[in-house]
Amino acid sequence: MRSNCEWCNLSEKEQQWLLYETQYWTVYLADEQDYVGRCIVILNRHCGSLSELSESEWNDLKEIIDKIEYVYKESLGAQLCNWSCLMNSFYKNEAPNPHLHLHVRPRFQYALTLNGHHYVDEEFGCHYKCKKSVVLTEEDRKTLFDMLKCNLN
Amino acid sequence: MRSNCEWCNLSEKEQQWLLYETQYWTVYLADEQDYVGRCIVILNRHCGSLSELSESEWNDLKEIIDKIEYVYKESLGAQLCNWSCLMNSFYKNEAPNPHLHLHVRPRFQYALTLNGHHYVDEEFGCHYKCKKSVVLTEEDRKTLFDMLKCNLN
Repeated sequence: MRSNCEWCNLSEKEQQWLLYETQYWTVYLADEQDYVGRCIVILNRHCGSLSELSESEWNDLKEIIDKIEYVYKESLGAQLCNWSCLMNSFYKNEAPNPHLHLHVRPRFQYALTLNGHHYVDEEFGCHYKCKKSVVLTEEDRKTLFDMLKCNLN
Repeated sequence: MRSNCEWCNLSEKEQQWLLYETQYWTVYLADEQDYVGRCIVILNRHCGSLSELSESEWNDLKEIIDKIEYVYKESLGAQLCNWSCLMNSFYKNEAPNPHLHLHVRPRFQYALTLNGHHYVDEEFGCHYKCKKSVVLTEEDRKTLFDMLKCNLN
C-alpha cells in the first residue's frame, strides 16, 4: 500500500515547502494558499485513520499542534486555528489507500501584511470556504515560508 | 468566562442527546443531522483551543476518537470519519469566549438504512457541505441515538 501512495513518496517539488519534521510527522506549507499560512501535517508512516495512531504518534501530534498554534498566533497574529482531518479524496478511488494528514488554517481578524501586501480573511468568524482561489503571490509565499520555518524550528 | 458560556451550561433539551461521557469530554448526537450520525465532542472544562488541553484531556480524546470511529464503522457501516475543530462562530462576538469542541461526521459509501428509510451520503468522496438541510426524521434520529448510545457504552 505504501509503494503506491503518493503521500509516502512526495516529490522534490513538495519537499521544498517542508517547514518542520519530527520522528512521526512532517509539516508542509500547503500548496493551496487559499487561506494564508495554511499547512498540512502528514504522518510519516502510512496509516489511514486517527484511531490507528500509536500513543507516541498521538502525543507527538499534540506537541506539533501546540507549536503551530503558538507560531500562528505569535508570529502571524492569528486569532484561532481551524483543524481538520477529513481524508475524503482518497475515497474517490475504487481501492482507497488513505494516508493520514491534517489540514490547519490560521484565521485572521485583521489583515496579515507580507511585503506590503495586505491579506484579509474575508470569512473570519465563519467556516472556511472549500473552493477559494489561491491569494498569495509567489514572493509572499516564500517570505511566509521562511518566517514560519524560522519560528517553528 | 465559564458563567456566560452556553457550552458550559447546556440545557436539558441538549442533554437528552448525550451519548457518552468521560471525566474530560462529553459526546452528543448533533442537533444538525445534515450528515447522518454527526456528533459533537465537547470538552467538559471551559478552554478555547487544542493547545491548551492537558495531557490527560488529550489522551482521553484519543480513546473517544477510537471508540467513535469503531462504532461508526462497525455499527453504521461508515467508510471513514471527518473530524474538525474549528471554533469560528465564537469569533463573531466582540469578546470571543470559545469552548473547545470537535465535530465528527461519519461518511458513507452506501446508503444507511434506518426504519426502512435510506440515507445516501451524496457528497461521499468530497468535503462535507457546510449548508445542508437536516435530512433525518425525528423517529430515525431517536433510533440512531439509541443505537449509538448502546454501542458507545
